[in-house]
Amino acid sequence: MTSLDHLIRTLTNLPGIGRKSASRIAYYILKKEKRFSETLAEQIFKVKQNIRSCSVCGNYTECDPCDICSDPGRDRTLICVVEHPQDVHTIESTGEYRGLFHVLGGAISPIDGVGPKELTFDKLVNRTNKQPVKEIIIATNPTVEGDTTALYLVRIFTDKDIRMSRLASGIPVGGDLEYADKLTLARSLRGRIPFSS
Amino acid sequence: MTSLDHLIRTLTNLPGIGRKSASRIAYYILKKEKRFSETLAEQIFKVKQNIRSCSVCGNYTECDPCDICSDPGRDRTLICVVEHPQDVHTIESTGEYRGLFHVLGGAISPIDGVGPKELTFDKLVNRTNKQPVKEIIIATNPTVEGDTTALYLVRIFTDKDIRMSRLASGIPVGGDLEYADKLTLARSLRGRIPFSS
Repeated sequence: MTSLDHLIRTLTNLPGIGRKSASRIAYYILKKEKRFSETLAEQIFKVKQNIRSCSVCGNYTECDPCDICSDPGRDRTLICVVEHPQDVHTIESTGEYRGLFHVLGGAISPIDGVGPKELTFDKLVNRTNKQPVKEIIIATNPTVEGDTTALYLVRIFTDKDIRMSRLASGIPVGGDLEYADKLTLARSLRGRIPFSS
Repeated sequence: MTSLDHLIRTLTNLPGIGRKSASRIAYYILKKEKRFSETLAEQIFKVKQNIRSCSVCGNYTECDPCDICSDPGRDRTLICVVEHPQDVHTIESTGEYRGLFHVLGGAISPIDGVGPKELTFDKLVNRTNKQPVKEIIIATNPTVEGDTTALYLVRIFTDKDIRMSRLASGIPVGGDLEYADKLTLARSLRGRIPFSS
């Protein structure tokens, strides 16, 4: 096997990259000037070296605590709970949210051997003991695992004086009723909101 | 910008990788153990260092001349002319071809500033002068540029006693007549072959 075959094989491990895409990417790297491959290699190497988990919220960061946790302009009474670090990035990109985050590290999924012990629920409870939290927004995925995790969260905080909310589920903006699946449509009916002008 | 943002931005340069895929890949690399990112970084770095163009055929190789050019079992009277090094790989993967290759480095495309001078036609003529070639199979893409290049090749070798052929163009195996475009169907009609049982 040549260096090229080795690279193609490693690239196929990446999410969404099949044999053909891997080969296309490898040939592209070969065709580009040397500086490109050097930069890419260095950045892949460095990203793993420089980035760690924030000790407070679990988000990926270069400094600890992360930029969001240490930002004095953030609303500290509001915590948005997500499954993965990339979800923080996604929610941040909307520009709609000014509270803090908490990354669980996944969702409860007995089939995959992920129980509450594997996730950072304890850390979240600790945070709510240390700082006055008024609301927890549950932003787990609208899947069986995400919903289970959401229910578990509600149960943990049932005795506390914290408002628990969940991201609205429904038909996407710009979507078409005709193409919405039954479950989504049912949820968006149940979760209908009063019309305000 | 963090290391993560830098990596995501570089990844979007790769073919077929948009903003979302790049971000997914970057988070995957972060999540994986350190060895994976180290291996990937090293392989990207090495591929550009180890692989060069074969001085005979222009294919990517680690040793010069390449494995195909130096293979004594290959039919040296047969040269398959392709646009890019990856086309060699694609044709090799069929296991149908036992001749040599010649990589042009692209196709004639005046709009992109690629004329015959930018491609390795001279080298191909030299090869046919040095070794007795019986047939040249033109395997450029069935596009305007590829067809132009094919015509140019035929004209170059018009005075020589070399059989010139072109890859058959037509409906793909497993395809459906209904979904074939007119041009492809027209070509497959013109290029129809006698039925042999």
